[in-house]
Amino acid sequence: MITTCQINKKRLWDSLMELGEIGADPAKPEEGVTRLSLSLEDLKAREFTINYMEKAGLEVRVDAVGNIIGKFAGKDPLAPIVIAGSHIDTVIQGGKFDGALGVFGAIEAVRSIKESGISLTHSIEVVSFTDEEGTRFGTGYIGSKAIVGCLEEETFQLTDDRGISYAEAFRQAQLNPALFKEAMRKKEDVKAYVELHIEQGRVLEDQDVAVGIVTDIQGPVWLEVTFQGFPDHAGATPMNMRRDAGLAMAELMLVVEEIAKKHNGVGTVGKMHVEPGGVNIIPGKSVLSIDLRHVDKNSRNEMIEELYQAISRINEKRDISASVEIKKQVDPTSCSPEVMELIEESCQELKVKAIRLQCGAGHDSLMMTKLTQMGMIFVRSKNGISHNPEEWTDKEDCMIGTQVLLNTLVKLAK
Amino acid sequence: MITTCQINKKRLWDSLMELGEIGADPAKPEEGVTRLSLSLEDLKAREFTINYMEKAGLEVRVDAVGNIIGKFAGKDPLAPIVIAGSHIDTVIQGGKFDGALGVFGAIEAVRSIKESGISLTHSIEVVSFTDEEGTRFGTGYIGSKAIVGCLEEETFQLTDDRGISYAEAFRQAQLNPALFKEAMRKKEDVKAYVELHIEQGRVLEDQDVAVGIVTDIQGPVWLEVTFQGFPDHAGATPMNMRRDAGLAMAELMLVVEEIAKKHNGVGTVGKMHVEPGGVNIIPGKSVLSIDLRHVDKNSRNEMIEELYQAISRINEKRDISASVEIKKQVDPTSCSPEVMELIEESCQELKVKAIRLQCGAGHDSLMMTKLTQMGMIFVRSKNGISHNPEEWTDKEDCMIGTQVLLNTLVKLAK
Repeated sequence: MITTCQINKKRLWDSLMELGEIGADPAKPEEGVTRLSLSLEDLKAREFTINYMEKAGLEVRVDAVGNIIGKFAGKDPLAPIVIAGSHIDTVIQGGKFDGALGVFGAIEAVRSIKESGISLTHSIEVVSFTDEEGTRFGTGYIGSKAIVGCLEEETFQLTDDRGISYAEAFRQAQLNPALFKEAMRKKEDVKAYVELHIEQGRVLEDQDVAVGIVTDIQGPVWLEVTFQGFPDHAGATPMNMRRDAGLAMAELMLVVEEIAKKHNGVGTVGKMHVEPGGVNIIPGKSVLSIDLRHVDKNSRNEMIEELYQAISRINEKRDISASVEIKKQVDPTSCSPEVMELIEESCQELKVKAIRLQCGAGHDSLMMTKLTQMGMIFVRSKNGISHNPEEWTDKEDCMIGTQVLLNTLVKLAK
Repeated sequence: MITTCQINKKRLWDSLMELGEIGADPAKPEEGVTRLSLSLEDLKAREFTINYMEKAGLEVRVDAVGNIIGKFAGKDPLAPIVIAGSHIDTVIQGGKFDGALGVFGAIEAVRSIKESGISLTHSIEVVSFTDEEGTRFGTGYIGSKAIVGCLEEETFQLTDDRGISYAEAFRQAQLNPALFKEAMRKKEDVKAYVELHIEQGRVLEDQDVAVGIVTDIQGPVWLEVTFQGFPDHAGATPMNMRRDAGLAMAELMLVVEEIAKKHNGVGTVGKMHVEPGGVNIIPGKSVLSIDLRHVDKNSRNEMIEELYQAISRINEKRDISASVEIKKQVDPTSCSPEVMELIEESCQELKVKAIRLQCGAGHDSLMMTKLTQMGMIFVRSKNGISHNPEEWTDKEDCMIGTQVLLNTLVKLAK
């Protein structure tokens, strides 16, 4: 069966641009879009998404953890459901495409299928997952974790930078944290998960292709390291009598870089602070985040092991103590060969050139793979930039990716 | 002439303890005292100091930059004035003695002289200088700079972490920033400046003496370095394609340590942040403070020179740009041999063992030396700790230091 149904390119683009205005200041385009999970901006974007799904003719519900689910019912109500989705929360000063394209592309695809009168056996659900980025509370994939049944109760005790707990944020969004288990889905009820996403790297651009078929996804590990030294006077304390927690942090930052290079993975320290934080006071405490990723689990575990060894060395050298907290640990994973095949077929029937590639960023698909067969469609990112106001994917590429998603969904749900 | 006038030890101690309650939370002694300059806490402490000076029988006035001046008039109203003082502002989570002892010790000394009926030729003024620490606006010695005529108008444009300008802070304290030049004193009107202060190091403790006579003071240089890189995605950006401003900062922090050790000076990075500050975003910008000190001006200048060279190296290596702002630059200085001699004589007549030592911290005396002959009396700090809630000087040592100050003031003003 060859699908002839076409998506509405303008409607897709307009929805992305309209969503991109929420959490952005028109007077400061250089600051991009900030919609931290369950913030006022995110709540506005959620409202917009619910309304948009309803306008698209989907049956909309919000589950126990705030995942927004828009359903296009298939002929067989008992047949397992095909899910397509992504997220609408962003990092601080992010862009208009990361996550948004996966949600609004899926809505556009399903809307076009529905409008064309095609009738499918399996229902399709478009899911906008709660808090993929994890920027606000330091741990992400909340919505997809809840769906696959691995969200833990302790998550609700985490606090954001202003001391608001996850439980409080849930209540502010009219959600009851005690009911989070109700969001869980059964394996037999789900047929497949497909996610459309911008690449966030430069591989597709370098190869001059619009679309990529993801083969593997790096599993990120997020650690938080706290060094405890002693806050002495900056003028009166000789260098050899110091226990400087800031310098311990600086050393570890460079170790993260060295380890990542050595193992051909990636490692990043993106968030940090020192206390008490005075110009003329030696830092007595420092706290830093570490994000380590690798497509190979063994290599990633070696990276973590070497990190711990370095922390011990630094502690001893500087007469400092450290504590390490693992904030997130997601195993690297491979995409389903069957779903990859259907994406490939879709590309061929659309005469879209596509390559297979690895994925360096984490996605809700990392969780969904625990529930069902999973595939990812990537579209080209300009200069590979993401998590940044300059993040950009051309209208044409958004359209091509969404059309490939449509064809793939039809094949999965037919 | 041998001075027999004794200070009131209990009264001195009570004043220090009472002042130390302002800006402290009794339920959280581990957080110490925080009285950032011209903050609500500092304004309360200023009110307390004014009242206390009046109770001590001094003629009190507040000059154009908020220096609190309590005068004990001498017999000759035309004779140049002897000044003793320090400051009552603190760093974040500081202690009860740094600055406070110099102000309340001087008040106690002058009060005791007055009460004993001794009449002196020269007037003595106790000065509590505005904003010695510089923690809030990134530059200190505001009060003493104004007195010696080297406060610059641009200082009033500096802003604190909440965006409040120095000019605004002045107005909130009922001061008119436009009048700052009125605080300036003439050289011929001042005879000498003496400052009593805690050591903030471990030299006196190691030598088991209560009192030190300062010979030289390190001149601190405060720089602020801003690195500008690019905020890419932490998962999708290979290590060799990154322009990580956080790593540039980490490298420079370790360079500061290396340079300080090499030159036998001190160097500290006490304050820093990165932007945008997300766990999974490579820092696109970093800002750090650098505090460099040395008793020898040439060595200090070499340290600065080497720092600039390192910044260039880091910029090139990481494809990053940097800007450097000098926030404060105070030359190292020597104390007046005449005042040192009078302090020494005072110690001898009191049978107090004292040693001569260098001073690693900056003080208002660094400024006052531009106006008049200057001397400093140090008292022992427990474990050398200062700028910290654990900062401590025993009652007995506070008393001995204050008594030495009294005798020195009598010699200077007789």
